[in-house]
Amino acid sequence: MKIASFEAEGRATYGVVDAAGLYHPVSATFQQRFADLKSVIAAGELANLPAATDAGLRADQVRLLPVIPNPGKLICVGLNYKSHVAETKRADSDYPSLFLRFNDSLAAHEDVVLRPAFSERFDWEGELAFVIGKGGRHIAKENAFEHIAGYACFNDVSVRDWQKHTHQFTPGKNFPGTAPFGPVLVTRDEVPDVTALTLETRVNGQVMQHASLGDLIFDIPTIVAYVSRFTPLAPGDVIATGTPGGVGDRREPPLYMKEGDVAEVEITGLGVLRNRIGTDHSAA
Amino acid sequence: MKIASFEAEGRATYGVVDAAGLYHPVSATFQQRFADLKSVIAAGELANLPAATDAGLRADQVRLLPVIPNPGKLICVGLNYKSHVAETKRADSDYPSLFLRFNDSLAAHEDVVLRPAFSERFDWEGELAFVIGKGGRHIAKENAFEHIAGYACFNDVSVRDWQKHTHQFTPGKNFPGTAPFGPVLVTRDEVPDVTALTLETRVNGQVMQHASLGDLIFDIPTIVAYVSRFTPLAPGDVIATGTPGGVGDRREPPLYMKEGDVAEVEITGLGVLRNRIGTDHSAA
Repeated sequence: MKIASFEAEGRATYGVVDAAGLYHPVSATFQQRFADLKSVIAAGELANLPAATDAGLRADQVRLLPVIPNPGKLICVGLNYKSHVAETKRADSDYPSLFLRFNDSLAAHEDVVLRPAFSERFDWEGELAFVIGKGGRHIAKENAFEHIAGYACFNDVSVRDWQKHTHQFTPGKNFPGTAPFGPVLVTRDEVPDVTALTLETRVNGQVMQHASLGDLIFDIPTIVAYVSRFTPLAPGDVIATGTPGGVGDRREPPLYMKEGDVAEVEITGLGVLRNRIGTDHSAA
Repeated sequence: MKIASFEAEGRATYGVVDAAGLYHPVSATFQQRFADLKSVIAAGELANLPAATDAGLRADQVRLLPVIPNPGKLICVGLNYKSHVAETKRADSDYPSLFLRFNDSLAAHEDVVLRPAFSERFDWEGELAFVIGKGGRHIAKENAFEHIAGYACFNDVSVRDWQKHTHQFTPGKNFPGTAPFGPVLVTRDEVPDVTALTLETRVNGQVMQHASLGDLIFDIPTIVAYVSRFTPLAPGDVIATGTPGGVGDRREPPLYMKEGDVAEVEITGLGVLRNRIGTDHSAA
């Protein structure tokens, strides 16, 4: 099942996306019970989401939102493909490197992602993100997938100079609206083997990153086990699994995104997450 | 004015703390308008908080909550005193080092702070935290204090081995309930010169950290200006300003907290934040 969060007729809602690409908002009654997609997941009702109605909305009738606009925790794994670790010239690590994003750093499919006017180093990072379905602490690796509701594409767009102001990545990873997340949540039952997926990032159609999800250094069960060892996970929490080699900052010469560029992250079966780049002139 | 968030008679509420140390919960009517302290601050009504009523509650009649239990953003500055930078043997930096905490990592005054049973390296970090009163982006240094609602003590308790698993501090800073924040919010008008404050951290009565807030490498206006350059700040957001030298991990020999220890953070005029240490046996 494919599910999206979106605005339709001025209302923030969510619902099933059918095979024809039509959006089926849940009824007002259903939404009174479960205000948002996170609430449905928390109630364990994701599988009972009302099936497609007759009258779906076309893409031009909705405005997508981030798949989960309001995760309780939004966690990103850094340096999780050998190809990316190598290009950053960092040492291998025994543990996943983790940083956090604020929710207002999320964006939706087709949102314009704004580069701050005061940085030229605006870079892509195509990633697979997963959404927690069942919460827990100290989750064992062998049970990890039972805790996952589904998957979506994620673009961990980074302001490289601000990321590298100090050893902590926080500032460069938290500019508003710099992490497109979508277009849809694909439920776990549709992804029998996540390691069989292929991730590709394109900028203006040129392939910049291309990797197998089987190449993750810390696979999804390891990430779930590690994270839940220090913090409880709850339904709707989001974990982005890291980016492969091919970021712009490590190219020779470096290549960054500028106004008018189009970034795309595509993962097998999860769709294409597409965003145009703009400029935020809010500060001189 | 001193303000606390607390539970009284089974209800989570907030209100003024008077000179005698009595707690004055806001009325049910007032709380219908402003559910929590963050909402009062956001409405610009902090100065209009109902004054002390006749019948205040004694400390033994309330259970304190973190000063702001639910900040939209909880940001911590690392390495912000020369004495601490020196003991960590890190290089100076031109920018504040920032990491984020989840809200569930907060704790209240007098809460038992739990060391995970699988780490022996449970360390104190006494700090001054401030709460944003008026939101903004690209806040100029000279206007920074206008955006601050008030101040409180903060103990950024750290699980050192987990903090150092990788270069990103996230895991060691996010164990549940490891950041005591309180006991009260002291409004900005009562702190005419924050650089005149003295911070002291004691463990079992022994002074471990003692510093002037005038010794911050990145002072509060610099922090507000820097943070608001990459992320919008909103009322109720919390920023902890970093810890001075004297942490346990850098002592010779190192000294860590264990069950039964009592950690205290005291800042001039802001009170004493006291917590007993316990052990979390939730995982083998």
